[in-house]
Amino acid sequence: MIRLPCQDWLRGYNKSTFSSDFLAAIIVTIMLIPQSLAYALLAGLPPEMGLYASMLPLMAYAALGTSRTLSVGPVAVVSLMTATAVGKVAQAGTADYASAAVTLALMSGVLLVLLGLLRFGFVTNFLSHPVVSGFITASGILIALSQLRHIFGIEGQGETLPALLGDLLSSLPDMNAATLTVGVFALFFLYACRSHLPTFLSGLGLQNGTANMLAKAAPVMAVMLTTLIAMLADLEARGVALVGAIPRGLPAFSQPALSPQLLAELLLPALLIALIGFVESVSVGRTLGAKRRERIDPNQELVGLGAANIAAAVSGGFPVTGGFSRSVVNFDAGAKTQAASVMTATGIGLTALFLTPALYYLPKATLAATIIVAISSLLDWKTIKEAWGYDYADFGAIVITILMTLGFGVEVGVISGVTSSIALHLYRTMRPHFAIVGTVPGTEHYRNVKRHDVVTHENILSIRIDESLYFANAAFLEELVYTEVAKTGAVEHVILMCPAVNSIDLSALEALQEINQRLLERRVLLHLSEVKGPVMDALKRSHFLENLAGKVFLHHHAAVQELARV
Amino acid sequence: MIRLPCQDWLRGYNKSTFSSDFLAAIIVTIMLIPQSLAYALLAGLPPEMGLYASMLPLMAYAALGTSRTLSVGPVAVVSLMTATAVGKVAQAGTADYASAAVTLALMSGVLLVLLGLLRFGFVTNFLSHPVVSGFITASGILIALSQLRHIFGIEGQGETLPALLGDLLSSLPDMNAATLTVGVFALFFLYACRSHLPTFLSGLGLQNGTANMLAKAAPVMAVMLTTLIAMLADLEARGVALVGAIPRGLPAFSQPALSPQLLAELLLPALLIALIGFVESVSVGRTLGAKRRERIDPNQELVGLGAANIAAAVSGGFPVTGGFSRSVVNFDAGAKTQAASVMTATGIGLTALFLTPALYYLPKATLAATIIVAISSLLDWKTIKEAWGYDYADFGAIVITILMTLGFGVEVGVISGVTSSIALHLYRTMRPHFAIVGTVPGTEHYRNVKRHDVVTHENILSIRIDESLYFANAAFLEELVYTEVAKTGAVEHVILMCPAVNSIDLSALEALQEINQRLLERRVLLHLSEVKGPVMDALKRSHFLENLAGKVFLHHHAAVQELARV
Repeated sequence: MIRLPCQDWLRGYNKSTFSSDFLAAIIVTIMLIPQSLAYALLAGLPPEMGLYASMLPLMAYAALGTSRTLSVGPVAVVSLMTATAVGKVAQAGTADYASAAVTLALMSGVLLVLLGLLRFGFVTNFLSHPVVSGFITASGILIALSQLRHIFGIEGQGETLPALLGDLLSSLPDMNAATLTVGVFALFFLYACRSHLPTFLSGLGLQNGTANMLAKAAPVMAVMLTTLIAMLADLEARGVALVGAIPRGLPAFSQPALSPQLLAELLLPALLIALIGFVESVSVGRTLGAKRRERIDPNQELVGLGAANIAAAVSGGFPVTGGFSRSVVNFDAGAKTQAASVMTATGIGLTALFLTPALYYLPKATLAATIIVAISSLLDWKTIKEAWGYDYADFGAIVITILMTLGFGVEVGVISGVTSSIALHLYRTMRPHFAIVGTVPGTEHYRNVKRHDVVTHENILSIRIDESLYFANAAFLEELVYTEVAKTGAVEHVILMCPAVNSIDLSALEALQEINQRLLERRVLLHLSEVKGPVMDALKRSHFLENLAGKVFLHHHAAVQELARV
Repeated sequence: MIRLPCQDWLRGYNKSTFSSDFLAAIIVTIMLIPQSLAYALLAGLPPEMGLYASMLPLMAYAALGTSRTLSVGPVAVVSLMTATAVGKVAQAGTADYASAAVTLALMSGVLLVLLGLLRFGFVTNFLSHPVVSGFITASGILIALSQLRHIFGIEGQGETLPALLGDLLSSLPDMNAATLTVGVFALFFLYACRSHLPTFLSGLGLQNGTANMLAKAAPVMAVMLTTLIAMLADLEARGVALVGAIPRGLPAFSQPALSPQLLAELLLPALLIALIGFVESVSVGRTLGAKRRERIDPNQELVGLGAANIAAAVSGGFPVTGGFSRSVVNFDAGAKTQAASVMTATGIGLTALFLTPALYYLPKATLAATIIVAISSLLDWKTIKEAWGYDYADFGAIVITILMTLGFGVEVGVISGVTSSIALHLYRTMRPHFAIVGTVPGTEHYRNVKRHDVVTHENILSIRIDESLYFANAAFLEELVYTEVAKTGAVEHVILMCPAVNSIDLSALEALQEINQRLLERRVLLHLSEVKGPVMDALKRSHFLENLAGKVFLHHHAAVQELARV
């Protein structure tokens, strides 16, 4: 029998849990209205699609997701990726554009469910944390820049740093003063609320938690204020772009466009959106889960998020995932279960039914300002700084990811990030660390001759290899042994000490056979020591041990005692 | 001052070396005439381009290459790759097709020289031996099938196994009986010479070496015989495809087509041809070099082969590399230096000047037969069998390479081969081997509790991690520790034994910090033991050691002695 994750919390659901969830739902709904409109704007889609993406997907995740407090919906980075992907196959503002976004959500959803059912959650392991962090930071910069056009009231299409800057500079003469005024006002208002409101409210005697929560409502206040101003001052006549008429009512069942050409063109973006969305969401889910000792099951999360995206597609939405700020608000407001999300979805549904006329006068510049101010939470300079001090490969991967994302857009950015982190990892293992070792006097331990004061024997060369041996470093190993043997004339035995060799693939095995043969021609015997169990099992399956001129020793010390010429 | 590799052998060049080289040059020239025509046919190019590719490139390599006996020129696999690449941008038989092949040679040459000057020879380390061997085996099958059309005298374009078989089956009704007769005769003749001539000649009292050498001249005999038959029986009138008129004379200086679109389309194929050609050539060079204790310098080889391809391009040839059979014949015939290649090039030049009319009646079916019979040296079932017994990842990579090459052609084949071998390697390191360890009684050694009879302590969990820690296995490590700790209630100390951990990247460091934090919440302390020097240096650059709840021990035994509750 299939067990839905929601059965865990439905059992034992009671009044107290309900009132916690209900309060959280109200707060999240209020927060989500401007957010969902803003991310639809960012994705280049009509505002109602933002609302649609915040109803059914939340219910689908509530039924199938494993986090109890994760709040699913449109998020900044995925919306930017949607804009980039859909912008390649259709003109922004057309029906084809909106329909391609729906198809993209469907494809991401299906891919996520497939990955989950195949238990392929592990593929996201290859998105290293530094790469994801660099990618999100760079996306944040692109998002902020792309929203500046709404603040200035100008046109633009660019999706890379040079294109966005070019658009801005070339269109600045066409900017709309009234729009700029609204935009700058909203920016200042939001920034001030964010930076100073919590302190101010605490000063008035409010509890810290409540003060923080109220400060999070700043976007709603900005929306109400600027909507009022726009209506009263008739800003529409002054050329300020407004949200305008939003179709009233709930989304109809939509059937996504499924032409083979469209599917082919959207496959790669859909996969990237699925992976990035999943990684972001799981990291939010894990963070919240750790606070309440709840476990997140990655493979079930794939299914939950996939279902949410499919739900977005059939109800006219666009790609969604678990959002950081929204989930934190949900958690802090006291949500106990996904029932909060179901009630939030209902709240958004009521908004779509009754409140859309009130949103007519909402200036797009206000929505852009909410996005820009929220972006700062995406910029992760800390990881970059940490990587700089810690590891050149991680730092290199971050820098490549950021530069490629800024220079060539989100898709090239993610792909180069993953490729470069894998390439740098392989490059590191290609020239493995090794050490000529000698005996620590009076012990059976062997240490690097360069780092420790150790005893060596003239006729023995002991090399400790600090890496698994495989195709990429097989050639290096050969070179290394020949070079070290050539340095010393009197060597009769080469012992490769292998406590850190976790596997030997066929290419490396052939290299060892070649080394054995060539050393033998020079009357030098090759030995191995401290070979791990699984490696030894593999060697026994080959003919290597039969041809090995020397022996395999369990302990390096035993090898040295037997072979040392006294 | 720049030193050319050829200066090494030019100094001290004398009469005896000259006569050895001269004899080898005569034998290689005779062998090379049918071979260069055949590979031009395989590449879909006019026969004279095969001759052109066997002159200047040999001289360029002689000046800049480091192997003394490697023989450069058109080879089977590279010719097939050329046909595939050029077939995508032009129609076979047109001037554009030939000119694109010239451009391809130029691009491969420039890429090789660049890789050499940047000392990037290491990139070829990522072409693992099993992958290369699988690729060449699959290419051999494709080559043999593609030549069957010349044996049957039918048309065809296919470049994959299904397409080639489809072409053959659908065109069989159109086959030409006279062509088939010539082709089958040539096949039988060549096969018989190859299998039985050496034994037969030895039986007549000839030395083994001489007998083998004469057997290698079989293709020349087949060429002469079938040419004579074609001329006397007027096979042209019976529809047998002949080599026909070859322009007499030496190649004029050619300027390759360099339109940006063509360059963009040929970039990937040129890179793949450069890499595969280089790997093949270096492996031949190394094999021969080892026999005479000569060293091959990979980066200089890149320059030498690059120069050979550029030389091919400016003299109207197509991509070349060091060939196996040709180099072996050169070596066995006694060539001592690259002067033999210079003389071979001169021999081919004389052929182009004076002998081309004699080749008019040469049936293409004969050339196809020489290719088919030579293919068997490319089929490497041994490596496949070895991999099957030894290592599932290597075997998987071979199978993927062969299937993708057969099913989707050479380019997809190489790329999937490289990708799959890297992916399988990463997959292996993603779920690293680990062991719960205990003390071997009476020693300071620690071994797997599952493989050895060892002593453990109730309050200590000792886990030996047999892999470097990095982004792909960071999540696995967390899961592993939590699972093992959850299994036993009484654990107070977790010691990660790290003698096989050769690096810890930033993602893994974050995982360790998380483990440390979560264990601490359960009042369990995390310790490390036997951390390698370079890893310890890296950890000291981070804040990890300050936050570590437990300690870092040099020896695992010291850790257990201190922490064990008596």
